[in-house]
Amino acid sequence: MSLITVGTMAFDAIETPFGKVDRIVGGSATYVAYAASNFVTPVRQISIIGNDFPEEELNTLRARGVITDGIEQVPDKKSFFWSGRYHTDMNSRDTLVTDLNVLADFNPVVPDSYQGSEFLMLGNLMPKLQTSVIRQLTTRPKLIVMDTMNFWMDVAMDDLKETLTLVDVLLVNDGEARQLSGEYSLVKAARKIMQMGPRFLIIKKGEHGALLFHENHVFFAPALPLEDVFDPTGAGDTFAGGFIGHLAKTKDIHFNNMKRAIIVGSAMASFCVEKFGPERLREITKREIDERIGAFVQLVNFDIDLV
Amino acid sequence: MSLITVGTMAFDAIETPFGKVDRIVGGSATYVAYAASNFVTPVRQISIIGNDFPEEELNTLRARGVITDGIEQVPDKKSFFWSGRYHTDMNSRDTLVTDLNVLADFNPVVPDSYQGSEFLMLGNLMPKLQTSVIRQLTTRPKLIVMDTMNFWMDVAMDDLKETLTLVDVLLVNDGEARQLSGEYSLVKAARKIMQMGPRFLIIKKGEHGALLFHENHVFFAPALPLEDVFDPTGAGDTFAGGFIGHLAKTKDIHFNNMKRAIIVGSAMASFCVEKFGPERLREITKREIDERIGAFVQLVNFDIDLV
Repeated sequence: MSLITVGTMAFDAIETPFGKVDRIVGGSATYVAYAASNFVTPVRQISIIGNDFPEEELNTLRARGVITDGIEQVPDKKSFFWSGRYHTDMNSRDTLVTDLNVLADFNPVVPDSYQGSEFLMLGNLMPKLQTSVIRQLTTRPKLIVMDTMNFWMDVAMDDLKETLTLVDVLLVNDGEARQLSGEYSLVKAARKIMQMGPRFLIIKKGEHGALLFHENHVFFAPALPLEDVFDPTGAGDTFAGGFIGHLAKTKDIHFNNMKRAIIVGSAMASFCVEKFGPERLREITKREIDERIGAFVQLVNFDIDLV
Repeated sequence: MSLITVGTMAFDAIETPFGKVDRIVGGSATYVAYAASNFVTPVRQISIIGNDFPEEELNTLRARGVITDGIEQVPDKKSFFWSGRYHTDMNSRDTLVTDLNVLADFNPVVPDSYQGSEFLMLGNLMPKLQTSVIRQLTTRPKLIVMDTMNFWMDVAMDDLKETLTLVDVLLVNDGEARQLSGEYSLVKAARKIMQMGPRFLIIKKGEHGALLFHENHVFFAPALPLEDVFDPTGAGDTFAGGFIGHLAKTKDIHFNNMKRAIIVGSAMASFCVEKFGPERLREITKREIDERIGAFVQLVNFDIDLV
């Protein structure tokens, strides 16, 4: 039950139709850690932060079983900062500011104490850095899951394609799957992407749910229809955290268990969007998670006889 | 097992990224009849056609158990004609031509022989005409399902609202649900719309599936991920036909059976888009329908333990 997560820990400024925060903790690895730590500990974090990152946040994470030995703190620089504004539909957003700060120097080092981990979650990051982490591991994990984004397809496609040959599961959204494959049909896109390396492909469609592809199988998990989506920031990372958290807990990477992991990820993401940043993730209980998973069962459950 | 369907029977000219047809049989009632007649007969059709509507098409429908006594043929006019061009995403289209022709005079009359039918499917039509059909029925059907579109919300909202008070199930797409309710959140939209009359609301989201709302329950059925969507024309009507066909066959209008009906409707719609117009619907077998429903079971089926 050992999991390494790699990614950013940052500050975000977020504007949605429901409100505004000027400075809230964010970053892919933060969301992954909050979500995954409900299912598995320790969560061995690899990230980089500046002198402004709150010690209380690190303590809160440590109290949840997150190991912070792999988090490099740069004393004379600031943490990565992102600012964005969501449109009314909450599916699209404008990036207002991206201050790389410490992220410009990020060169992730896997602590010796992290060696031997069975699960690796590579958050969205420069593909070369993702590859570097994989290469540093003395034993290949049982499962490597990788997130990425369109930006790397634009500026570092060759590096990205190399990383793809090293991972088991790729997480992208529908637009990214289309860009990566050059295919509009997601079924065709999935087939091409699985030929690039990953045996499993998850295509996230935001409020329209997520698809899991593997060989000739496909599984669909809806998003929970919510009264209000308050802030979608981090929902994808939270999904990833719930997904790999469930897999690391159960140590079962067969397709049937991946389906369950996607439902767990979807349930976690449905909490994330209820408040700004990772706020809601800090407070949810196991009982609430169970109830939410139950809501997903209700949402798609049917029995049918043939015609 | 008696079903009345009301709607258009028409000619369409369709352009998609995959090809073009200049003149193919279409119309909401045509698609409903083809889909529903796989599950229930007779299908009692009410529509209007011109002197150009092919007798062979009527014969094909009759051979499937569609009663055509309620189809008015106007000798000196042409059938309704619609022409449209789909964009690459197949989710949006431009209407190029709308020639009402006979539809301008449509005043549906329910034949005496249709009285006593237990199920009524009102295809998308001027709301006043939908209301007129309901008023002509001497016994209220067990279930009235109604389709509509944004156009009637723009030009005949008051009439539409009156029709809504008379029906049990409303079928709209997500944009229409938002327009009708003034709510962006589909959960909030559903609550408002169900206060307008229908006890059940189905929100169709095209390639993103469909939601069924009833009281505090919600059910989600995905669309089948397809390699290619060849022509989406009629998919919504085919969905409606499969939906009401299953209900009329089973005579069970409880929520659990509505869920099954939505899966059946989704399966039928997934056939419709595989070829131009209703072409694919003419050829599918019960065995193919069974296999397709099985694919839906596979697509969403999972078993899960709680955390």
